[in-house]
Amino acid sequence: MLTRIDHVGIACRDLESKIAFYESTMGLTVVSREVNEAQGVREAMLQVAAGPAGGSYVQLLEPLGPDTPVGRFLERRGEGVHHVGYGVADITAALASIGASGVRLIDARPRHGSMGASIAFLHPADLGGVLTELVQAASAGPAQPGPPAPR
Amino acid sequence: MLTRIDHVGIACRDLESKIAFYESTMGLTVVSREVNEAQGVREAMLQVAAGPAGGSYVQLLEPLGPDTPVGRFLERRGEGVHHVGYGVADITAALASIGASGVRLIDARPRHGSMGASIAFLHPADLGGVLTELVQAASAGPAQPGPPAPR
Repeated sequence: MLTRIDHVGIACRDLESKIAFYESTMGLTVVSREVNEAQGVREAMLQVAAGPAGGSYVQLLEPLGPDTPVGRFLERRGEGVHHVGYGVADITAALASIGASGVRLIDARPRHGSMGASIAFLHPADLGGVLTELVQAASAGPAQPGPPAPR
Repeated sequence: MLTRIDHVGIACRDLESKIAFYESTMGLTVVSREVNEAQGVREAMLQVAAGPAGGSYVQLLEPLGPDTPVGRFLERRGEGVHHVGYGVADITAALASIGASGVRLIDARPRHGSMGASIAFLHPADLGGVLTELVQAASAGPAQPGPPAPR
């Protein structure tokens, strides 16, 4: 069902300085920048690897304010890994299968994510403390995301 | 320099139940189990994707006792993402380059990791709170790891 580690989402306080670090020291390149008002983040995707059905990325996340999911994460935990995203070929089928197992779905239907992907989050309490995201890349087939949902 | 997301290392209290979850619900398969006395962990690697120079894995880590790095992590933070491992083609060259940039190296020389890989950890304080591991897979070339170092 999972096809790749799509990305590691890392919460940070200063997006530009973290981008500069991952570019200069780790040799990565920014391939996308977005502001997602619904999720309350300014973000950048830095490509680690390419792939026919979607690549692998470091996703850097800076909150738009303290009263956002990532802002509250920083207040509670400090900078660090915020979530892990796994690639799937068919996100609707994956959600149905995982939901049927009893895992709580934060997003019962896919919504729009970074770089045109369809995404959905699973509840961390059902995944051993790991906020987990499913990602159907824009190139992986005809996505049918619902409208963005506030979190 | 980084060639892939090699693995996400997840700290858990009960390895067997987490393996069962990732197998039955997420569809992954265990490809390796090890007890690493030097690191104080019992671990399993579950393959997410294969690749010519190394795959991508979920690494589940259960501490051998409370007074181990993962045991202390669980006490302090609870279950969740413990570290992120990135693939590199030449770990000695990568360590030299990253170390020259000022990042503190927990392992100045590569040592033996899971599945015959050569690995080295970078200090999380220099990577925005993310304990970061470099991994040269056993298949990626002639590795020259030093002896295992206690952590």
